[in-house]
Amino acid sequence: MADARRGASRRQFLFGGAVAAAGVAAGFTADRAIVEYTEANAPAHGLSTVPFHGVHQAGIATDAQANATLIAFDLHDDTDREALGRMMRILSDDAARLTQGQPALADTEPELALEPARLTVTFGFGPRLVERAGGTTPGWLRPLPAFAIDKLEARYSDGDLLIQVASDDATSMAHAVRMFVKDARGFGTLRWQQRGFRHAHGTRKPGVTMRNLFGQVDGTTNATPETDDFNELVWIRDGWLAGGTSFVLRRIAMDLETWDLVGRKEREDSVGRTLDTGAPQTGGGEFDEPDFDELQPSGHPVIARHAHMRRARSDDPRERFFRRAYNYDEAPVGEASSNSGLLFIALQADVDRQFLPIQERLAELDILNIWTTPTGSAVFAIPPGCAEGGFIGETLLG
Amino acid sequence: MADARRGASRRQFLFGGAVAAAGVAAGFTADRAIVEYTEANAPAHGLSTVPFHGVHQAGIATDAQANATLIAFDLHDDTDREALGRMMRILSDDAARLTQGQPALADTEPELALEPARLTVTFGFGPRLVERAGGTTPGWLRPLPAFAIDKLEARYSDGDLLIQVASDDATSMAHAVRMFVKDARGFGTLRWQQRGFRHAHGTRKPGVTMRNLFGQVDGTTNATPETDDFNELVWIRDGWLAGGTSFVLRRIAMDLETWDLVGRKEREDSVGRTLDTGAPQTGGGEFDEPDFDELQPSGHPVIARHAHMRRARSDDPRERFFRRAYNYDEAPVGEASSNSGLLFIALQADVDRQFLPIQERLAELDILNIWTTPTGSAVFAIPPGCAEGGFIGETLLG
Repeated sequence: MADARRGASRRQFLFGGAVAAAGVAAGFTADRAIVEYTEANAPAHGLSTVPFHGVHQAGIATDAQANATLIAFDLHDDTDREALGRMMRILSDDAARLTQGQPALADTEPELALEPARLTVTFGFGPRLVERAGGTTPGWLRPLPAFAIDKLEARYSDGDLLIQVASDDATSMAHAVRMFVKDARGFGTLRWQQRGFRHAHGTRKPGVTMRNLFGQVDGTTNATPETDDFNELVWIRDGWLAGGTSFVLRRIAMDLETWDLVGRKEREDSVGRTLDTGAPQTGGGEFDEPDFDELQPSGHPVIARHAHMRRARSDDPRERFFRRAYNYDEAPVGEASSNSGLLFIALQADVDRQFLPIQERLAELDILNIWTTPTGSAVFAIPPGCAEGGFIGETLLG
Repeated sequence: MADARRGASRRQFLFGGAVAAAGVAAGFTADRAIVEYTEANAPAHGLSTVPFHGVHQAGIATDAQANATLIAFDLHDDTDREALGRMMRILSDDAARLTQGQPALADTEPELALEPARLTVTFGFGPRLVERAGGTTPGWLRPLPAFAIDKLEARYSDGDLLIQVASDDATSMAHAVRMFVKDARGFGTLRWQQRGFRHAHGTRKPGVTMRNLFGQVDGTTNATPETDDFNELVWIRDGWLAGGTSFVLRRIAMDLETWDLVGRKEREDSVGRTLDTGAPQTGGGEFDEPDFDELQPSGHPVIARHAHMRRARSDDPRERFFRRAYNYDEAPVGEASSNSGLLFIALQADVDRQFLPIQERLAELDILNIWTTPTGSAVFAIPPGCAEGGFIGETLLG
């Protein structure tokens, strides 16, 4: 909670003695400031930063920000290994600046860089980039196999370079996106951009699971940075990707029209959870274990055989991943009355071992498939982080 | 600051006696709670509400929220006066609920309604709706005259019914948008949706002027609700629109590519303000008056003749309006590397008297026209607010 501490010391400075006195009177320890909360003295969250340098890249274990833009580039034919090194040095250098609230090196709008609001920038490599660099391509770094449920569009799929830009402030994010597009376009062609959102920072208590636009609590069963086996599930241990991970994007269109025809009970049955709290239909709270064996008086299981939760669950504890999804909601096209869905992002050490078995089970039978359609799909290798002076991708390109 | 008070009493409840004791010790009055600020006990801004009922509609004088969606409908041919009354009753009823954090009447995702985060809903009527209702059409309620700078597209222009949905939380906004689209589509066809953003709530100190994606401080010279003559400038006094206003939307594409070719000094000259603080080039702070007569040693005026600020300024104090703009930044189309701009929204009692003279001067000569292109344009009449039990538009349709 570096953010909170930073906010506190700024306020201590602003309110001086009176605040300290109140703190003592109430018996709080000296390093915890007490202030009267008003809109006017609320800490300006725009100044909050997430470190760029580290063992892992930021934007993975980072508490998801309110806004994200995913950008993919196709490399120019003449972008060789040496050029890739230059590209990643430039991108890393600007990411190190922008995430810390400093303008990019050739920033044309430096004032838009001053309020990062937890801006993170995360880079990923597609199979062609790794091949071009002469690196070892992990077996899982390839397009996912085709699923019968897919209706994939090139404008939402694949790519050689991924840049994930996320911030609690959309203005700060838009500026950073512009800087990275300008940095990268000498080396490649913009392939696609996709934008998503979650609940705004400060809207909800921290740690509350997000809801998607079907109204469902979305992401309860998730390896989170607080989970014991998070490191094991997410971070790769060997080779140039040690300290990195894999990134699977599935753009999932959610048909609000046909979903509207489904009653509340059927909606709950489709997932196996209640809509109000997200608790399993077999009782308890959101994070309690479901009882898949519990039967209704009729003899049918309480949690249906086709329920998403049952189908997504594996007996193998290694078949889990970390999800970090964003909703999207865009202007409808043509006769449609909505254009909504999910940028489903799965992070895991090994796509084939952790993600694919679950995806295959869900593609085969998951009643949610009736109302959802994957329209985009991409897989990237996320290199490890770097220390100050280094650059993202140096274990491949350095 | 009803929001802050509400937050305070929630926290008083949560922290009980210890908080009260601290308040007394520090000499604060009893109705102002003191709490230790941490991320965990920060008030959940999602619960903040803006009243729906009142003399004026919300969403005009309301401090602009972080996100806005503008929706326009074309009325069905058979939507007559009686149907319009039904439509506005339904829309008003759902707006009254959703803005207060309650589900819409036939809410299919009631859980998405519970955190409005200052949700406001504002309705506007185009010329055809007023005609259909048999009301008096104000002279200014018509498409703006064509300007040589315009490259208007139908998919961003005109319409019979406007719904402006704004919230500090994009999820809450998306849900409300869906509810209103479903409410209205029995009476009309969705014509367009446009989305925009400003700095996130809590990112900056309140009252700081926003920046646009050119990096400019945008909207310094603005009639604000704190301005003495705000009421006179914005609210209409007579007829069925008494307590209402007029709403001009100009969708302005901003060409970041050509703007990049402009140096910092030339960027400042184009507006007449410095980029760092937004102060006039003749000195002082952001809100100080410019000296349009001040000359450089060369004899040229310090604030150029073509500068936006000079061209926008009128000697007639009645030629002013209230602006409430939103940035937009969408996925680039085709070969473009950006798709950015401004949803410029001007609010005034009389479009012809207050907005048009300025718009005409700027269309004739404003150096910003080099880098900006109006691609959408629409004018709506914003009816007054309503009391509990009433509905928006009742002075026209009741």
